[in-house]
Amino acid sequence: MDYIAHLDTAIGRLHEEGRYRTFIDIERRRGHFPHAVWRHPDGSERPVTVWCGNDYLGMGQHPVVLEAMHEAIDAAGAGSGGTRNISGTTVYHKALEAELADLHGKEAALLFTSAYIANDATLSTLPKLFPGLVILSDELNHASMIEGIRRNGGAKRIFRHNDLDHLRELLEALPADAPKLIAFESIYSMDGDFGPVEAICDLADEFGALTYIDEVHAVGMYGPRGAGVAERDRLMHRIDIINGTLAKAYGVMGGYIATNAKMADAIRSYAPGFIFTTSLPPAVAAGAVASVKHLKRDQALRDDHQTQAKVLKTRLKGLGMPIIDHGSHIVPLIVGDPVHTKMLSDMLLEDHGIYVQPINFPTVPRGTERLRFTPSPVHGPGEISALVKALDALWSHCALNRAELAG
Amino acid sequence: MDYIAHLDTAIGRLHEEGRYRTFIDIERRRGHFPHAVWRHPDGSERPVTVWCGNDYLGMGQHPVVLEAMHEAIDAAGAGSGGTRNISGTTVYHKALEAELADLHGKEAALLFTSAYIANDATLSTLPKLFPGLVILSDELNHASMIEGIRRNGGAKRIFRHNDLDHLRELLEALPADAPKLIAFESIYSMDGDFGPVEAICDLADEFGALTYIDEVHAVGMYGPRGAGVAERDRLMHRIDIINGTLAKAYGVMGGYIATNAKMADAIRSYAPGFIFTTSLPPAVAAGAVASVKHLKRDQALRDDHQTQAKVLKTRLKGLGMPIIDHGSHIVPLIVGDPVHTKMLSDMLLEDHGIYVQPINFPTVPRGTERLRFTPSPVHGPGEISALVKALDALWSHCALNRAELAG
Repeated sequence: MDYIAHLDTAIGRLHEEGRYRTFIDIERRRGHFPHAVWRHPDGSERPVTVWCGNDYLGMGQHPVVLEAMHEAIDAAGAGSGGTRNISGTTVYHKALEAELADLHGKEAALLFTSAYIANDATLSTLPKLFPGLVILSDELNHASMIEGIRRNGGAKRIFRHNDLDHLRELLEALPADAPKLIAFESIYSMDGDFGPVEAICDLADEFGALTYIDEVHAVGMYGPRGAGVAERDRLMHRIDIINGTLAKAYGVMGGYIATNAKMADAIRSYAPGFIFTTSLPPAVAAGAVASVKHLKRDQALRDDHQTQAKVLKTRLKGLGMPIIDHGSHIVPLIVGDPVHTKMLSDMLLEDHGIYVQPINFPTVPRGTERLRFTPSPVHGPGEISALVKALDALWSHCALNRAELAG
Repeated sequence: MDYIAHLDTAIGRLHEEGRYRTFIDIERRRGHFPHAVWRHPDGSERPVTVWCGNDYLGMGQHPVVLEAMHEAIDAAGAGSGGTRNISGTTVYHKALEAELADLHGKEAALLFTSAYIANDATLSTLPKLFPGLVILSDELNHASMIEGIRRNGGAKRIFRHNDLDHLRELLEALPADAPKLIAFESIYSMDGDFGPVEAICDLADEFGALTYIDEVHAVGMYGPRGAGVAERDRLMHRIDIINGTLAKAYGVMGGYIATNAKMADAIRSYAPGFIFTTSLPPAVAAGAVASVKHLKRDQALRDDHQTQAKVLKTRLKGLGMPIIDHGSHIVPLIVGDPVHTKMLSDMLLEDHGIYVQPINFPTVPRGTERLRFTPSPVHGPGEISALVKALDALWSHCALNRAELAG
């Protein structure tokens, strides 16, 4: 058995398709976000501006977050020392879960090591709690939701992206007494479009289904206290399980669900991905508490964020750049070919000190390869101008399409 | 559809079986491990000694680890700001992967957010790389390995725990040209027994199988540089994929695999659990680097650890306590009934300030419920005497069995 030959085949396939990933080695400089130092493969270091991070509000350098982390390290040490059940539940974890339950107006919240595992563990555990459960899942749901839904081979129906007629059709075809759950996102991060939250809640009510929303690209950023799109639209009470992350707008690490007390108790008790893993370090939980608390009040930061996104989109549209604009904070620029996308990304990095990662299949469908920019309150007018000028020059240099593709 | 009734049923089942879990809310005090403050459900705070943590060597309070974490927070901020591929690869992650590859004498290492997800993501991805792969798995493998092996419905064979004849039988029954992988642990954490590493490597050679070892309860603690049991037994070069954790002996958080460059490249490229999740915070990676580096040299700490375990086992045996002793650092004391185990644990905590979590099904088989002690270099003679005396008193008080069960 030639195992290495199989690995060569698997890796070779990625090279052939132009979607082999090379990690860019960077170090952000605290106090100077979005500026970072890029360690070039030749060993030299160069300054770059990060334009593709998920620290959407720059909270990863906010003094209240860093102070809380320093304090927790001094008080309680590095790691938690155990799983949640075996010596790994600390006052920091309890405080964070209380903060998150309050944020979402739910009875309880459960922390996971990431929002990925929160989705995976929760969605794969629900069929154990509701025998015969059918999960209705938007076709563009995140990989972690897909993995969770597929894991135990439970029943599922995939509805076309944001297609309420299709979702209704699938619901109608199911037995009235079958347990059902509709799983979707509030903001789909690759196009930056919104899920139809209210209409899905209406369908859930009509057909007696539970609702599960992934708000990882919304928490911290939308709603008067940063609880997400469901808060903004006054729909949180109609969602049974809200999934969120502490690693993007909150700037730290970890994920969670917020839900009713019994659901949280059951997931906590039955999900292997929750039970059998070391809990988050106290310092991570402490940093997240500080960040969530802060963003419950800092509406100005949310406003800045939206303004920066609008400015960037307006300027790119003015140049006829084919961006997608659904009114969210995410700015995807379609290139449509993995090789070109990579080339543009390389030129931006090498020639302009602008770091934006190419987004390829399987993260997005083939033919829609793109650069995806994440403007934030820490990207000032100077950074935006530099990006716009560089793109304009590259677009001309490469004779790429302009207005006809603009959304 | 009455969803709440289903949740009541699921939770009620746990109460009936005496295995409903209640989290104990503690805060370890840096510089005073294993001492901690227990927040009692009535709101009062009481001092406790933690006897069930997985910070096996007390590295979670080691100055080199904490200093590295503080420095990284000051330099780079709180979170990493992205997935490994999209702005979340930093110099800290690269340094840690290099440190771990060196530790295990492998070409490469890959970081995951936990050893749970490292097992789950790697084992569920291997069948994509080796079509037709059959995974031969020890029946007592950790939940995360089981989840990974089951995930995509790939072919598997379960061999009886540490039973080489059974493993051989299963290997013989497979086609000679089928790709195969033997997955096992170096130390099984519930009994503290060792896997037969060399004999499994021999079988793997004979039948052309890959080897996958979980060393999470061994890394940092065994082998001259702390690379685990395979290092101690000079067998690392015969293992294809080594799984380890940074959350136990290394005292921080995160997990990894160490393997050859091509395997790492393929897993990195194909595993959703690696690709679609925010990378570890720079401070966590920095703390782990410091810890791994330190334990490559601090053999005295490893010796202390083993001594403490031997002392505790000798003293408990002397009192006829039914402990299991396979010569590792883990000290399981069999009670054999979930209700009694919980009661003993409660009395130790309430009356003696000793915190040891009851271990119940499904973590261990029914009928083998236990208390499991994890002595460490930070447990001094005073703490050991207090524990031994408390157990002696409780054993008499509850008229529990002694010598006849002793291993």
